[in-house]
Amino acid sequence: MGIGPGALGHMTLKAKQEIENADVIVGYKTYVKLIDQIIKPETEVFSGNMGQEVDRARKAIQKALENKQVVVVSSGDSGVYGMAGVVFETAAYEKTKIPIEVVPGVTAATAAAGTLGAPLVGDFAVISLSDILTPWNLIEKRLRAAAETDFGIVLYNPKSKGRKKPLALAHKIFLEYRDPKTHVGIVKNAKREGENAIITSLKDMMNYEIDMTTVVVVASSKTYRIDNNLVTPRGYSFSKTK
Amino acid sequence: MGIGPGALGHMTLKAKQEIENADVIVGYKTYVKLIDQIIKPETEVFSGNMGQEVDRARKAIQKALENKQVVVVSSGDSGVYGMAGVVFETAAYEKTKIPIEVVPGVTAATAAAGTLGAPLVGDFAVISLSDILTPWNLIEKRLRAAAETDFGIVLYNPKSKGRKKPLALAHKIFLEYRDPKTHVGIVKNAKREGENAIITSLKDMMNYEIDMTTVVVVASSKTYRIDNNLVTPRGYSFSKTK
Repeated sequence: MGIGPGALGHMTLKAKQEIENADVIVGYKTYVKLIDQIIKPETEVFSGNMGQEVDRARKAIQKALENKQVVVVSSGDSGVYGMAGVVFETAAYEKTKIPIEVVPGVTAATAAAGTLGAPLVGDFAVISLSDILTPWNLIEKRLRAAAETDFGIVLYNPKSKGRKKPLALAHKIFLEYRDPKTHVGIVKNAKREGENAIITSLKDMMNYEIDMTTVVVVASSKTYRIDNNLVTPRGYSFSKTK
Repeated sequence: MGIGPGALGHMTLKAKQEIENADVIVGYKTYVKLIDQIIKPETEVFSGNMGQEVDRARKAIQKALENKQVVVVSSGDSGVYGMAGVVFETAAYEKTKIPIEVVPGVTAATAAAGTLGAPLVGDFAVISLSDILTPWNLIEKRLRAAAETDFGIVLYNPKSKGRKKPLALAHKIFLEYRDPKTHVGIVKNAKREGENAIITSLKDMMNYEIDMTTVVVVASSKTYRIDNNLVTPRGYSFSKTK
């Protein structure tokens, strides 16, 4: 289940209800903390660390086999770099037949876009820069393909303490295909406590702090700035006469 | 504001609150109907037809200038082929300075993905096949780029009564780069009344009914089928040993 970007208001009604009805909640500790105030005292909670995704899926399946109503939480949408896949895979791997429902949520791409204005109104590509689970040469091909064909590009997991090179490489690739003046939005903690948004250019984006809690939006060539917002025109007639 | 895919449960808490607090609600009539039961009797409602987006934005701005609390609704997320951009653009065009907030919602891509399982766990591209507002040659370039670099691909507006060619062309392009056995999910009315999901292959996808209320997900080469679900592995170790 996706709990949305973090602030409770951006959670769906169904997600809230599922949390309230759960016997067991399983999740990465940072995400469990975000929903702490709506978890009932009698609900069992198993929180864990980054990198223990398969362990969490196993725990969830074990509890479901005990006929418990189990909710596995991810931030954003659980089907976008989240736990949804791992739960299906682990259940299949362990040859268990439990009913699994994926409850969608507001993903970081559109949460960040909303904070920046409307930069993703046209076609866009979502790419994670984490090369732990995806080979870098495939990530690079996708970055080139998306940059060359003027997609709006949303970068998830742009940088971590131990992983700085992919973002620098991505930046170089973008500059090969796009104008240095291309608008870039950098949103830290989108729709979550501590939100901070910066609108800058492709040329200058590396001068700002970017980390694991940040989403980077590289806008299309058509995107323009209206006051403090980035807007990608959909192509309606009044804007053509501008 | 995005109301999510349609079923009220998939709306965010904030979206519901904004509808309840609105003096005026403006939206395409189909979307207004989806939220009809939570609109208060005293709220003014302006609904309109497809193609009248700029008129609706003007009406919303006019009402906002009368100091009304106005909510412009889109289905899904208003920043994904929705009204968010048009509202910013119209306000700028009319040189008005009204405060505009974009409230994100669950977009059709992740709603449909949830219904299909977890096909978008890896990188994905969102492409609209509507060539009314985007030139076809650009859409084609993006289809080729996304197909060639093995993105999960989500097609919005795949086909309408008067527009059948783009989907046929997209299908041909996909077959140039992808195995005919590639998994394809076709979801009509995702997370809305009348939902229907089909899992088929790239080879056979054109045999099924696809229209404007349908989202098509062309999975990556890594995506596999577990019972009635499509799952894209994130790359965790247990699946590597399969």
